[in-house]
Amino acid sequence: MIRVGVVGYGTIGKRVASAILKQPDMVLVGVVKRTPDYSVRIGLSRGIRFFIPDEEKADLWNEAGVKFSGDIAQLLEKCDVVVDATPKGTGMHNRKIYERKGLKAIFQGGEPPEVGDLSFVAQVNYKSSVGKQFLRVVSCNTTGLARLLHAINREYPIDKAIALLVRRSVDPNQDIEGQVDCVIPSFGISHHAKDLKTVIGDIDVVTFAVKVPVTHFHIHMISIKLKDSVSPNNIIDLLEETRRIAVISSKDKLGSTAKLLDLSRELGRSRSDIYENLIWLDSICTEGKWLHLMQAIHQEAIVIPENIDAIRAVSGSTDASTSMSLTDSSLSIASSRFF
Amino acid sequence: MIRVGVVGYGTIGKRVASAILKQPDMVLVGVVKRTPDYSVRIGLSRGIRFFIPDEEKADLWNEAGVKFSGDIAQLLEKCDVVVDATPKGTGMHNRKIYERKGLKAIFQGGEPPEVGDLSFVAQVNYKSSVGKQFLRVVSCNTTGLARLLHAINREYPIDKAIALLVRRSVDPNQDIEGQVDCVIPSFGISHHAKDLKTVIGDIDVVTFAVKVPVTHFHIHMISIKLKDSVSPNNIIDLLEETRRIAVISSKDKLGSTAKLLDLSRELGRSRSDIYENLIWLDSICTEGKWLHLMQAIHQEAIVIPENIDAIRAVSGSTDASTSMSLTDSSLSIASSRFF
Amino acid sequence: MIRVGVVGYGTIGKRVASAILKQPDMVLVGVVKRTPDYSVRIGLSRGIRFFIPDEEKADLWNEAGVKFSGDIAQLLEKCDVVVDATPKGTGMHNRKIYERKGLKAIFQGGEPPEVGDLSFVAQVNYKSSVGKQFLRVVSCNTTGLARLLHAINREYPIDKAIALLVRRSVDPNQDIEGQVDCVIPSFGISHHAKDLKTVIGDIDVVTFAVKVPVTHFHIHMISIKLKDSVSPNNIIDLLEETRRIAVISSKDKLGSTAKLLDLSRELGRSRSDIYENLIWLDSICTEGKWLHLMQAIHQEAIVIPENIDAIRAVSGSTDASTSMSLTDSSLSIASSRFF
Amino acid sequence: MIRVGVVGYGTIGKRVASAILKQPDMVLVGVVKRTPDYSVRIGLSRGIRFFIPDEEKADLWNEAGVKFSGDIAQLLEKCDVVVDATPKGTGMHNRKIYERKGLKAIFQGGEPPEVGDLSFVAQVNYKSSVGKQFLRVVSCNTTGLARLLHAINREYPIDKAIALLVRRSVDPNQDIEGQVDCVIPSFGISHHAKDLKTVIGDIDVVTFAVKVPVTHFHIHMISIKLKDSVSPNNIIDLLEETRRIAVISSKDKLGSTAKLLDLSRELGRSRSDIYENLIWLDSICTEGKWLHLMQAIHQEAIVIPENIDAIRAVSGSTDASTSMSLTDSSLSIASSRFF
Repeated sequence: MIRVGVVGYGTIGKRVASAILKQPDMVLVGVVKRTPDYSVRIGLSRGIRFFIPDEEKADLWNEAGVKFSGDIAQLLEKCDVVVDATPKGTGMHNRKIYERKGLKAIFQGGEPPEVGDLSFVAQVNYKSSVGKQFLRVVSCNTTGLARLLHAINREYPIDKAIALLVRRSVDPNQDIEGQVDCVIPSFGISHHAKDLKTVIGDIDVVTFAVKVPVTHFHIHMISIKLKDSVSPNNIIDLLEETRRIAVISSKDKLGSTAKLLDLSRELGRSRSDIYENLIWLDSICTEGKWLHLMQAIHQEAIVIPENIDAIRAVSGSTDASTSMSLTDSSLSIASSRFF
Repeated sequence: MIRVGVVGYGTIGKRVASAILKQPDMVLVGVVKRTPDYSVRIGLSRGIRFFIPDEEKADLWNEAGVKFSGDIAQLLEKCDVVVDATPKGTGMHNRKIYERKGLKAIFQGGEPPEVGDLSFVAQVNYKSSVGKQFLRVVSCNTTGLARLLHAINREYPIDKAIALLVRRSVDPNQDIEGQVDCVIPSFGISHHAKDLKTVIGDIDVVTFAVKVPVTHFHIHMISIKLKDSVSPNNIIDLLEETRRIAVISSKDKLGSTAKLLDLSRELGRSRSDIYENLIWLDSICTEGKWLHLMQAIHQEAIVIPENIDAIRAVSGSTDASTSMSLTDSSLSIASSRFF
Repeated sequence: MIRVGVVGYGTIGKRVASAILKQPDMVLVGVVKRTPDYSVRIGLSRGIRFFIPDEEKADLWNEAGVKFSGDIAQLLEKCDVVVDATPKGTGMHNRKIYERKGLKAIFQGGEPPEVGDLSFVAQVNYKSSVGKQFLRVVSCNTTGLARLLHAINREYPIDKAIALLVRRSVDPNQDIEGQVDCVIPSFGISHHAKDLKTVIGDIDVVTFAVKVPVTHFHIHMISIKLKDSVSPNNIIDLLEETRRIAVISSKDKLGSTAKLLDLSRELGRSRSDIYENLIWLDSICTEGKWLHLMQAIHQEAIVIPENIDAIRAVSGSTDASTSMSLTDSSLSIASSRFF
Repeated sequence: MIRVGVVGYGTIGKRVASAILKQPDMVLVGVVKRTPDYSVRIGLSRGIRFFIPDEEKADLWNEAGVKFSGDIAQLLEKCDVVVDATPKGTGMHNRKIYERKGLKAIFQGGEPPEVGDLSFVAQVNYKSSVGKQFLRVVSCNTTGLARLLHAINREYPIDKAIALLVRRSVDPNQDIEGQVDCVIPSFGISHHAKDLKTVIGDIDVVTFAVKVPVTHFHIHMISIKLKDSVSPNNIIDLLEETRRIAVISSKDKLGSTAKLLDLSRELGRSRSDIYENLIWLDSICTEGKWLHLMQAIHQEAIVIPENIDAIRAVSGSTDASTSMSLTDSSLSIASSRFF
């Protein structure tokens, strides 16, 4: 059993914690959280143990009448691996603590690439990640693009890929700092292109991005020039065979992100999460060597399977295929289609 | 066992079907649906049987390769009670069919009051509904207001209540017919006041409404003139003792509807549903005989427990208290607080 | 001629500056602005002179190649009155500067009441404001409520007023810090009630508020208990006779804030501004002594006429009626109806 | 003087009417409108004459107390040219009427290409349009792309262009049929590509589109493979020299569509319109032969100058350059930069 601690219990941390609870080869030692909010109260009722980041927070928790089991140092002592899901920039600072304790750690994509020995996407580089001390799971957009482009490139070599990211403004549980009736572009090539190089450096990808006032899903409009032309059906076959990529169809009335949200609710997924790249069959088209398609990325959930696999990779407990199978079956991740 | 059929598998129908599956004293015979979309494919994988509204739809289903088990007539033959969750206006028409077959039926609040022998809210009038043939579960806003005002009025008689309803524009799975960057008022007293009279006719309530571009929760801002003054703590005590009303606090970081959505996701509720009136502790204030408070109503879910109770009421299978207890425990409905 | 300077060139400052340019008895000496953005470049092309808040900003302006005419001290020397339209909290600090220089000044509603000798709404207390050194124009919501309730109370004494404010999230030109798919309530009585007491302290008003994701207009749902009953027609007559209040009708297809925005565009108003309280005829209804109605308040524009009148009030240059007539005709403010 | 009638007084019709009033060589004979709403009342006060589409509407106008000057037949008798700005599909039907009367007519992009002898964008094909009987001004997205791609292609031949359109959901004055918290993709190549072929058939362009919940501006992310590489500065120089294309910079704080809306308000444009393609300097980047850039298109206004030029083209009254100069100076259209 791999003993895992989770530092941070926000959008990513709470999902990683829930996923760990479902793994046959892992135990969730506990979670570090600053503020005793509703998610802590519910987590406690589910049997999760909470630790505070420093002693100064003890009063806050005591006043709120919310139970904690110690501080971060006490948690780390009992862990083999820690998943750091703290806000952007904090992970780089925490790394020193993990280093001092000789702990293996997984960081998130908000941290700079140097935080990890490798930037990790399971289907791309699990093998080279085995036994590393620090891995960085890349961000939701980068994970979604890396999964897709790696799969296509392996079968149908890519000459150049252009991706426009239509990003959600804030997560569904954020009530400030969003935007109303407004589109906000990134100017010039967006940072995702550079981040992709840390994972799939052999593929020529350029990315552009705008932010729009929605809370569910990033949409990627992707145009790929292949080295040789290919038929849409070949692409569909390939995607249906690829892990963590699911094809959907507007014929099933899945023609907008509102319907995708409802799909996740109907599927009965925890927190309405979707771990798979969702690719619309109807969006796939080719002209000569060009292939065009659109995918939807559930920004809160897509990196969760990668975090779980990364735990196994640093532990060296098993190989890529076994890890991904364990992860996928524990989270009911669709192999190709949902139905 | 009460054998129940559900006609219509939209926002309400699919929730009623799921809830029936959780009742110890009911069996879901099947569901009538027009279009074989993603929700049907998922429903089939959950073991639900689908029936088409008429033979003309057979081709559509066959072409889509989606299995159906017969038509509506075949379904109705095997049912004791039918829950009609068809789009507004259809229920009144379907009533004739149920009448002809001598079937008991539950209708929704989109239909006119005449569709039912009584307009039903479990906590208000279960007893007088027992054994009726037709009941009408009132709409989400009316249900939410009736539960609350009935509870207050019984303990602290109401002189006059004024409610402003800040309504969500469309449901989260609707991708058209909403509004963008716009508030749409109802002019004059909104129809909810009239509808409330069908349930709590003894209380003087006036309602006003605006529609705003959000998809989660209606918010009710309620000002009540009581016959005698009361302290906020008395009100809190009363609400904590009242079924299907849960008090929440912005101190737990539940200060917006975005957080309420997240609360439902953390609670692990099916489809992120919240069946309870959510009343903010912090909103409760009094001045003289005036009591002011705010509640949030999950528009997709709040009427689900009422539908289940209504099934038992028409069946005459049990009394109000037993029915509500069965319903509440099967759906994990909070008695007072979530934690 | 009253020589006026404007400190701050944001939402309010730029509108006050434009309005001053239209007054026959005022001259705009110049405007203080921190950042040389597009609004400055356009202002310069309209002949407005800009001053920087301190010498440290000089490099920024020089690098951007945008002309400025000196610093704030140089501007203030040439002014009789200054309108301080700086961000919340800054005005209180600036007051000391104006005091030292013996300047008359107008502040905005974001400042605490103590910033002014009086909180000002022209129709309510112009007369008592004449000759004061410092006036505080109250915020948009307070101005809108004060105008309306004062007018009604004078004619039809108010026993109690309850106002529910459905507030826009951010202004149309703000691209961050808004909210997406979310309603944010204020808990308990909102601050507007207290602020109203500084202007119409004799009227018993309680206010509640929610914030919704739109950018145009606050909507007020107002329920008023009058001392004696009155007919809707009497109220309509009163409103039509009241300055800066315009009645509109959904029969003219003005049934939402989207249509009100378009109304302002069709009227050809500067910046699509609406200076008047907009009251829907169709919303006015009575039951017994209760009067209910809804109004829309253009949050960027409504305080502009008050700022102009406040300049005249501190200058002591004329009486209330003359000032308001000058202001209204210069800004094409509707006396009762737009058409 | 060209005598012009406008049929339809919605988003396009009212703007064309206003623009005609500003032309030195045109007279607005009148406008056809179905419903006597606020825009009619305001139009009347500006001296515009209204005509009803058929006698059956007379009662409606009379009851509303709104003056009309006759019916469409009476209007058409006095016109040389008619601009048909009716809802999608109506123009094709109206064409027969204009044909019968031997009238010249301009149609909008909602109609099929066959409605016109030519699909018109002034900078592309004014010359070949001279003297035609029927012209079709293409839609806002097509106009914006044609202006830009034509200008680039003439100077720097285009090998292939890929345009990703992030479309606004509804116009600011529409209060239904929008979408809330949802992105709606078009599946496969969007119809704009085909429409572009009717104007710039020599350029290889492919388009994709999503619709997002905003009301102001379409955003185009455009990737162009040129036949030879070019520097960003060459592109900037070209764009600055091109009519009806204005370059803007996020350095002037114009970094989102919210700021562009405010730019239009500050410019004091009628109805906050922007007739120019707005291209962000900061978005222009090149890699090898690839050129990438983003532009914003004001969906309500961009086709107005084309409608005015189309009137002159069918009239044969002047040449392209003279017409565009007249149009641009009358509407204060920026030649290159706004400031």
